[in-house]
Order: sequence, then C-alpha cells, then structure tokens
Amino acid sequence: MTAFRVGLLGHGTVGSAFRSLLQERADEVEATTGLRPEIAGVLTRSSGDLEEIVAASDLVVELIGGVEPARDYVLRALGSQKHVVTANKALLSKHGEEIYDAARAAGVQLRFEAAVGGVVPVIRVIHETLAAAHIDRVHGIVNGTTNFILTEMERTGVSYDEALHEAQGLGYAEADPTDDVTGRDAAAKMAILARLAFGARVSVEDVSYEGIENLTGQDIAHARELGLSLKLVGTAERVDGGLSVRVHPTFLFGAHPLASVNGSFNAVTIESPAITEVTLSGPGAGGSQTASAVLGDVVSAMIPPATLPPPPVDLPLVTDVESAFYLHLEVADTPGVLAQVAEILGLQGVSVKSVVQHGLGADARLEMVVHRVLESKFLAAVELIGRLEFLRSRPRVIRVIEETF
Amino acid sequence: MTAFRVGLLGHGTVGSAFRSLLQERADEVEATTGLRPEIAGVLTRSSGDLEEIVAASDLVVELIGGVEPARDYVLRALGSQKHVVTANKALLSKHGEEIYDAARAAGVQLRFEAAVGGVVPVIRVIHETLAAAHIDRVHGIVNGTTNFILTEMERTGVSYDEALHEAQGLGYAEADPTDDVTGRDAAAKMAILARLAFGARVSVEDVSYEGIENLTGQDIAHARELGLSLKLVGTAERVDGGLSVRVHPTFLFGAHPLASVNGSFNAVTIESPAITEVTLSGPGAGGSQTASAVLGDVVSAMIPPATLPPPPVDLPLVTDVESAFYLHLEVADTPGVLAQVAEILGLQGVSVKSVVQHGLGADARLEMVVHRVLESKFLAAVELIGRLEFLRSRPRVIRVIEETF
Repeated sequence: MTAFRVGLLGHGTVGSAFRSLLQERADEVEATTGLRPEIAGVLTRSSGDLEEIVAASDLVVELIGGVEPARDYVLRALGSQKHVVTANKALLSKHGEEIYDAARAAGVQLRFEAAVGGVVPVIRVIHETLAAAHIDRVHGIVNGTTNFILTEMERTGVSYDEALHEAQGLGYAEADPTDDVTGRDAAAKMAILARLAFGARVSVEDVSYEGIENLTGQDIAHARELGLSLKLVGTAERVDGGLSVRVHPTFLFGAHPLASVNGSFNAVTIESPAITEVTLSGPGAGGSQTASAVLGDVVSAMIPPATLPPPPVDLPLVTDVESAFYLHLEVADTPGVLAQVAEILGLQGVSVKSVVQHGLGADARLEMVVHRVLESKFLAAVELIGRLEFLRSRPRVIRVIEETF
Repeated sequence: MTAFRVGLLGHGTVGSAFRSLLQERADEVEATTGLRPEIAGVLTRSSGDLEEIVAASDLVVELIGGVEPARDYVLRALGSQKHVVTANKALLSKHGEEIYDAARAAGVQLRFEAAVGGVVPVIRVIHETLAAAHIDRVHGIVNGTTNFILTEMERTGVSYDEALHEAQGLGYAEADPTDDVTGRDAAAKMAILARLAFGARVSVEDVSYEGIENLTGQDIAHARELGLSLKLVGTAERVDGGLSVRVHPTFLFGAHPLASVNGSFNAVTIESPAITEVTLSGPGAGGSQTASAVLGDVVSAMIPPATLPPPPVDLPLVTDVESAFYLHLEVADTPGVLAQVAEILGLQGVSVKSVVQHGLGADARLEMVVHRVLESKFLAAVELIGRLEFLRSRPRVIRVIEETF
C-alpha cells in the first residue's frame, strides 16, 4: 500500500469536515487511485508546525481562509514543490497571480474548486470548456446567503431585515453578514471566475459591486408584476475588446436559467457561441459540501480523472420500484364508483393522497394522486380497475416525483 | 511544431461540423496544449481506408453512429493503441463493456462526453464527482426532441401530433422520430449514465422505458392544475441494494430542478448525500454543439485539463457597460412629471421601453423599464432626475437582463 500524504492547514468547520470525509472515503479513494490518502499533519491556531507538515506531505490542503497567514503558507507549500488544494476565495481573488505564478514555477497542481460555487463544479467545467470553446459571458448567482434572503423576501413577503435574521438563525448567514450582503463575497468569486474564463488579470478590487441591503419588498413586488425575478447576479463578459466584471441586484426574465435558482443554491451560466450556454447549479457552500469539493480536488490531484468506467461491479438490476402515481379515470357516474376504486387500491396497499372528481353524470372524471408504492402493486390495482364496467376509457397512469422534504 | 493527428470516421452533419471546428480552433488548441491538431484522414461511405487512417492517427474520432460498422472500427482503433473519442450512444449502450474492456486492455483513453446530454458535461462531472462522493440517484431529461414537444404542448396547447410536426419543421425531430418519442434514445443514454455512476453492467436492454406518444393535452392540463410539470424523465437509482434504471413520462413538483428545463434543452441532476444535488443543463445535441463536445474530448485526450489558469493575457477592464434598467420614481403628481423625466432620459439617449404610473396625487409612482444603454448615460440621467423638485424619494435603479432573442 502506497500512501498519499495530505497536510491539513486549518481545522475549523470545513477543515474538520474534510478530515472526517477523507477518513470515511479512504477505502474508495484507494480503490480508485491505487493510493491511500492519509493525514500527514494538521496545523491549527494552537498546534502543529508548518514546516514539518509541509515536509511530510505530498499535497497541502489550505482551509484557514482569509489572506494572511494563508498566503504565506500556500506560497511556502508551493515553494516546496507540493500540490495545493484551497477553498480560499479571499486569497485567490486578491493575490491570484502571485499564487498561480508560484504553482506554475514549481510545476505542481493548484486546485480551488471549493473557492467558488459550493459543490457546483464550475472551475473544472470552465477549464475544460475553454479547451474547445471561446467563452463570451459568465453569469453567476455565487452567494448562497443573499440568494436565500431574496428568495425568502419573495416567497413570504418578509422584509430584508426579517429575512436576514431568519438566514442567521438557520446558519445561512454569519453574525456579521457584511461580506455577503454588500456583494463583496460575490465580487471575489466573480474575479476568480473571470480570471479563469477570460485569461485577464482580475482582482477583486477591479470588480464593481452593489449589495442587497437596500432592496425592499416593493422591489420584489415590482419584479413579480413585470414577470421578472430579482437576484444578486455576477457578470463577467467580453465588451468592446475588453472585459467587464460586476455584481448587482438584477431583474431576470422568467425563462433565464438563473431566474428559477432559489434558496441558498448557487448557479453559474457559461455562454459561448459553440455551446450556446451551459448552466450548473447546486447548494452553496456548507461545511460538508465544501469538504466534498476539496476532497474531489485532492483525488483529482492524486490521479487524473478517469476517461472510462472501471470494470463493472455486481449490482443487481431492480425492475420493481416505488413511485408515486397520478391516475386518471373517465367514469360513468355510478353511485359507488369511488368506493369500488378505493377498495381495489386499498386491497393492493395503495394509499390515496388526493382525489378530485370533475364533471357530472356520464362525463365524470376522477383524478387521483397516490402515495409512493411498489409499481407492481399499483399496476395490478389499475389492471383490476380497468375491468370495472363503469369505466369509459382505459385508465391513464403517469408517475409523479414529489417534494421529499 | 508537433502535430496531434486525428483520424475522423464519418462525415455527416456532426463529422463535418467537427472538422470545421477543429480547423477554426487549431491555433487556440495549439496554444493550450503545445500540439497542433490535424486531420490525419477522413473515412466516409465512399472514400478513405480505415487501416491507413488509424495507422496515421494518434486519436480516432468515431462519428458514424449506429452499432455496425462503428463497433468494429472502434475496436480496431483501440486494438491499435489509439485513443478514441465517440458520440455513439447506440454503440456504448449496447456494447459498452466490450468497448471499455478493449480501451482498458490497450491502455488508451476512451472519451464519450458527446454521447449523452449535448453540450452538458455530465460524463466528466460524474467521473469527477465519483472520486469524492457516493452517488445515490441520477435524474435526467436527456432527449431534447421530446422535451421540445412537451414544452410546446404546455406552452401553446397544441396536440402531440402538431407539436411533433413543428419539431420536425424546426429540425428538432427527425422524419422518423420513433427512437426519440418512444423513449428508446433516452433509455440508451440512461444506460450509459447508470453504468458510469453506479459501476454496474447496464445495457439499453435492461432499461424499461415508456415514451410520450400517448400523452394528451389533457395530461398537461392536469399537471398544471396540480402545480406539476410533465417531463420525460430518466432515472437511475440505488434501490434495496440494487439498481433501477428507467424512463417514463413523469409529473415533477414545481421546485424540482428539472421542472423548469424547457424547449430542446437537456439537464441532469446528480444526487449524493455529500453534495446534496448538482444540476447541469444546456442545449441538447445539435451538430455544432456535439462537435464542440467532441473537440473538448479530443483536447482533454491531448493533455490533462489544466489545474490553474495560464499566464494572464492583456485584456482591458471595461467599467462602463450597456444594460437595460428598471427605474422607480415616487413623485408628487405634478402635471408634466412624465414629460420632464422623459426629456432628461431622451437628452442622455435613454430609450424608454415601458412605463406604468401607479397611484394618484401625492402618492403617485412611476415604474419604467428602459432599453439597453451605457450605464454612465443612464446614471447621469438618474442623477438629474433625482434633483427634480417633485421627487418624493431617491430614484431606485435595478439592472434588468431580458430575453435577447
């Protein structure tokens, strides 16, 4: 067994989540890569020695956050020819060129998927899209806190202050939410994306930004009247032979791919003539999601991602699965119709969630939604129902995917 | 200059689009990879010799489609230790194991991003997600033809036949649409995704599927009544220690990430406890989109995707850009208010798209949307408007992104 030694800098929420996840997934990572990942050492505020940890590592994960001492530590790891994985958007948006130059000079990998977009793999997709397409524009909802607040204001009509308070209660906003609500966090992320997508030097200081602190319920009401959706949108785009990078509250037309991104989700749309547009969306960064993005980077640094599936495992194919169903019956309005249908469903263990009768007399229709049940049981019941004499046409069945939370 | 020689099998719509795109992007690919891509030979129905083309190539692109002779050609290319890029879902969903085994035995890359999801990079994201997360479920709208037809039925109330006819007229459906409308095409793609995400042997023959041919406008009306969206959904999920793969018309709850995927778009949602869910969406396969996905695979085969941005290029940062704007004014209802506001906007070259007055007398509000204009001009106009004596509060300005087509 060959070990792949990971030095961990920082042991806060994300750092400890990453450490647990690495241990939890070590067997599978070893099966995929042929190398067993091990923590070579952990640097916290009060313990651990940077030089020793870097020397003992093949790769260093930086999860301290903020500019210093993270900048110094990352540069020292790169200077020692160690791969680096970081989630540090403040560092990269401010000192990106210095870090990228150091990684290039050292000939090592620098991966930072977790710095932008939570679990949404936007960094990889831009890297790989670039190879084949010329990107014209990137739009992003890259701050989950502000998207949660705007969604709550829209959904429940609460004020900005109430929505912020709710976000804080749920852990979606920090006690000091300044960086998020002023748009500065989103500006840092857009600087990183713009540097990547367009190749130009972009620092967070180059990004004009405006936050959501002054938005009112009325603004949201106006958006609705106009059929628009109010979001904090980051934009990086080619303009007149140059590049514009900015973050603003923005009304989006209803069919825009970002218009339906709600709650604490992040999403990024990449536009290019060759591909039209691709949108990626998923939960914004929580501790476990960020840890998962970091681990993905670590594994990719260990070996290049596979290009074909590994040899197959034995996993039996299941053909009879549970689903909720919609059932539509055209019936002659015989007394007792619903009772007979319900009896058959009940005998097969099918539980009715809702039923509506439309029409009267010979034109009556029953529309039912049933709870999740094994397909075989439901279809057996439908087969029996189809034989009932008062049915005017074959029962219509459509599967239903409902909210599970 | 070192050449990277690409043998092209098939010269139909996608093959010729790929050949043009490769020539168009050769300089940029060379700048990225250090290798200049060149077409080593083209095999068409009437010209070219397979053995010669394979012998002269570093990588073979198979765009013939269908099972034979594509299978034979791909196996021969792999047998000659050449990397292969293919968009052939029929081949991989039927003979995937044989092809994967051959690629593994030859120690070469096999890439097939273009086989599923159009430009949506779902194959890469699953490969890379797998490294760090255990996937529980994949849901996909993986057939653009059927999604276009369902969207048209929902949007305009036309019948299935009318929507199909419209799709054929627009090139979204083939003259013989059987493979698409029966769900078989989606079943093939779900077989490929399931093999990849869950590691189990899955052939298209293992996938139960149902198409959209029998759906009616009434089904769509019922969906709307229930707040649901009717889509052709492919599902691959772990169930009771096994795997279920299936394609069915399905009612989705409104907030499901696939519920708002409309027109000929494709989208895939990947669910895992570690990442919650990630959704990727974009246009389904057209010739140029598929060609772009194929080129992305070719470039990735040439060199592994970068992990950090290349040295920066000179691209000036533009701070004054065009945008459409929403402008909200609280005014005392003075005669001539609108005239004065309009005059100021007009002098700055700002063109009003719509204006609505709410309220009366001292409570009047004007809500305007203006066409795209340079931000500096619009903000200068707002500055002047803000000084007008009849204004009761500061003007409120929010950017607008509108439909551009």
